[in-house]
Amino acid sequence: MKFVLAPDSFKESMTALQVANSMEKGLRRVFPDCEIVKVPMADGGEGTVQSLIDATAGKIISVEVMGPLHTSVQAEFGLLGDGETAVIEMASASGIIHTSHKNRNPLITTTYGTGELIKHALDLGVRKIIIGLGGSATNDGGQGMASALGVKFKNAKGEQVELGGGYLDNIADIDVSGLDPRVAGTEFIVACDVTNPLIGPNGASSVFGPQKGATPEKVKILDRNLGIYAEKIESCLGITTASVAGAGAAGGLGAGLLAFTPAKLQQGIDIVIQFTGLAEKIIGADVVFTGEGGIDYQTKFGKTPYGVANITQKVSPHTPVIALAGAIGEGVENLYGENFTAIFGILRQAGPLGEALKEGEKNVAFTTENIARLLTVGINMPKSIDKHNI
Amino acid sequence: MKFVLAPDSFKESMTALQVANSMEKGLRRVFPDCEIVKVPMADGGEGTVQSLIDATAGKIISVEVMGPLHTSVQAEFGLLGDGETAVIEMASASGIIHTSHKNRNPLITTTYGTGELIKHALDLGVRKIIIGLGGSATNDGGQGMASALGVKFKNAKGEQVELGGGYLDNIADIDVSGLDPRVAGTEFIVACDVTNPLIGPNGASSVFGPQKGATPEKVKILDRNLGIYAEKIESCLGITTASVAGAGAAGGLGAGLLAFTPAKLQQGIDIVIQFTGLAEKIIGADVVFTGEGGIDYQTKFGKTPYGVANITQKVSPHTPVIALAGAIGEGVENLYGENFTAIFGILRQAGPLGEALKEGEKNVAFTTENIARLLTVGINMPKSIDKHNI
Repeated sequence: MKFVLAPDSFKESMTALQVANSMEKGLRRVFPDCEIVKVPMADGGEGTVQSLIDATAGKIISVEVMGPLHTSVQAEFGLLGDGETAVIEMASASGIIHTSHKNRNPLITTTYGTGELIKHALDLGVRKIIIGLGGSATNDGGQGMASALGVKFKNAKGEQVELGGGYLDNIADIDVSGLDPRVAGTEFIVACDVTNPLIGPNGASSVFGPQKGATPEKVKILDRNLGIYAEKIESCLGITTASVAGAGAAGGLGAGLLAFTPAKLQQGIDIVIQFTGLAEKIIGADVVFTGEGGIDYQTKFGKTPYGVANITQKVSPHTPVIALAGAIGEGVENLYGENFTAIFGILRQAGPLGEALKEGEKNVAFTTENIARLLTVGINMPKSIDKHNI
Repeated sequence: MKFVLAPDSFKESMTALQVANSMEKGLRRVFPDCEIVKVPMADGGEGTVQSLIDATAGKIISVEVMGPLHTSVQAEFGLLGDGETAVIEMASASGIIHTSHKNRNPLITTTYGTGELIKHALDLGVRKIIIGLGGSATNDGGQGMASALGVKFKNAKGEQVELGGGYLDNIADIDVSGLDPRVAGTEFIVACDVTNPLIGPNGASSVFGPQKGATPEKVKILDRNLGIYAEKIESCLGITTASVAGAGAAGGLGAGLLAFTPAKLQQGIDIVIQFTGLAEKIIGADVVFTGEGGIDYQTKFGKTPYGVANITQKVSPHTPVIALAGAIGEGVENLYGENFTAIFGILRQAGPLGEALKEGEKNVAFTTENIARLLTVGINMPKSIDKHNI
C-alpha cells in the first residue's frame, strides 16, 4: 500500500508537515508497514516557504530588512533543497503582520524589504526565485522592491521620490541603469491567485486598499498614483502593466515584478506542486490524502486540496483523494465532481475554536485512522457486492 | 447493497429515527437504489419508548398520573406494533424532569405514577411490559408503584403508610392481597443498566440519592428506611431484594418490581435489540451503521452502539459496523476490539454545542454520504492491493 499525504497547513493549528505527520500516525496504526510519502503543501500564500522547505529538505534564512513602515524587521526566506531556488513570501518583509490596526497606512508602506530579500537570495547564487504575494501591507506597485534592487524613481527635479504609494505621483522618470544585473538572468516565478488589474474599480487600491487601512479618500489617491506609476513604466520602459491580470496583486507588487524582473505569474498551488514534485510522487499511490484548515466552496478556486485533487486526476485518475478539514463550509458538494472522493471533518466535539486548534494533531490522527479502518472494509466489500449482483 | 441503520438518539438534537433518516439521506446520495433497513435504537434509558414505537410502528398513549411530588403530571407510555407489549419509561411519570432543583426531595417523591402507568397498560390487555428505569426522582423502593397496583403498606396501627422514601420505616406489614391479579400473568421486562444493590455504600440512596436532592443526613435516613423496607418484604413475602444486583436502580424501584411483579432485570440494550428484531434484520447486511450523541470509554458498558456492534459480531461477523457521534470522548480506541470498524465525528466546524445540536441532521447526512463515498473506494481497492501484492 502506498499513501501520499499532501495537506496544506491548518492555519493557527498545524503546519502542513505537522498535518502530514499526524496523518501518518493514524495510518500506521492500521497499516504499520505501508509506504507513506509526505508532501507538505501550500498554495502560494502563508506557509509556502515552510512547506517547500519541508518538502525539499531546504533551509530557512533569516535576515533583517526594512519593514512596510520603514522600520527594520526580521524577515525570512527559504532556500530549497536543490540549492538553486529561493522562496520568498513578500509578507515576511512587507506584510500586514508588521503593522497594527492603528498604524496601517498604505500611503507610506513599502515593499523595499521584499526587494532586500530578493537581493539576499541573489547573493546566495540562486537561479530561480519563487515569490508569494499574499498578505501585503503595501500599495506601492512594487516601487520599494524595485528601489532595493537599484531602480531609481526620480521626481521632476531629478531627486529620489519617497517610498510609498502616496508618493508615486511625483515620479517623472524611472532609471533602471542601476538595476541589479543578476535579476535579468534569474527566473522569477510569482505565486499570484488574484486576477485583479493594477488600477480601476477592480484594481489593487479599490479592492484591497481598505483592508490595509485606506479610507475612501486615500483609495482615490492610491488608485490615481498607481495609474501615474503605470504610465511612467510604460513611457520609460515600454512595458504595459495597468490592465494585466494579477498586476494588482499585493498592492501592485505584481505590476512591479512584471516591469522590473522577468517574472511569470502563476497560480500558487501550481508552483508548489511543481517544486514539490507532487505529480511524480502520486504515481502508484493507492490513496492520496489532502486537507486544509477550512474547506468550502472557495476551495475550488486554487486552494491546495483542489490542486492536489486536480493533479491526482491527471496523473493517476483512479487514485482516490480524501480531504480532511477542521471546518467544512457550505458548497463543498461541488468538490465531489472535482476528483474529491470524500471529505471529513476532524473535530471530536463541539466547543470553542481555540480548543479545536489545540487538538489538531490528535484529531487528524484519529480521523485518518478511522478512514484507514474504513479502507480495509472496502477491501472486503466486493464479495458482498458480487453476492448482491450490483 | 443492504445497509442497516441502527443509531440511538443524539440527545437534545435528534431522535433515533431522525438520525436514521439522516443517515439514509446521505447513503441515498451515493447508493440511490440500495436496500436500507432503519432500526431506531435506545438502550433502555431516555428515548426507549420513542425508539421501540418507531421501530415497530407502535403508538404513544398519554395519560394523567401522579407525579413524583404527588401532583398530577401528564405521562406517556408506548404500545408496540405487536399490540401486546407496552413500554414504559418510569421517568415519564416519576422522573427528575418533573422536579426543579428547589423542590427535589427524595423523602417524599414517589413512584405511584409509574404504578398507574402499569395499570393503564394492563387495561389495554398487554401480555408484556418493558420498564425502563433511568432518570428517576424517587428513592421509595417502588412503594408508590406497588401501592398503585393495590399493595397495602401498613404501619403498626394498621393505617396506610404515607408515600415516599422518608416514611418506609413506618411499615409494619405489607398486604399484597389487593395486588392487581393481572400482574402475575404478565411478563415484566425491566431495563436496568446498573448493578447497584438496594442498600449500603453502593446502594440506591448513597450513590444516586444526592443527585435527587438528598443531603448527607437524608441519605442516611433513606438508606436505613430502604433497609427496613427490604426486611419487611423479606418477612412478609419471603423475597430477598436488599443485595440483588440492580435492586438499587431507580431509587430501589428495581427491588419493588422484583418483590411485587414477576420481573426479570435485563440490560436495556438487549431488550431493545430483542423487541426491534435487530439481529434478524442485520443478516445479509453489507454495512451496519450505528451512533449516539456521545461515544467514549463508557460506550462499552451497554450503550446502544456497543450493543449493535456486539449483536452484529454474533449474527454476521464479517459485516462492518460504523459508528457516528456528535462528541467522541477519550478511550474510544477500546471499541475497535469490540467489532467497531470505524468511528466518525459529525461536526463540520468548531463552535458552541447549541449550534452543533441544531445542525445534527445535516451533519449526519453529510458524514454518512462521505463514508458511503469511501466505501465505493474500497470497492476499487483490491486491484491496487493485488498489484502491490499485499
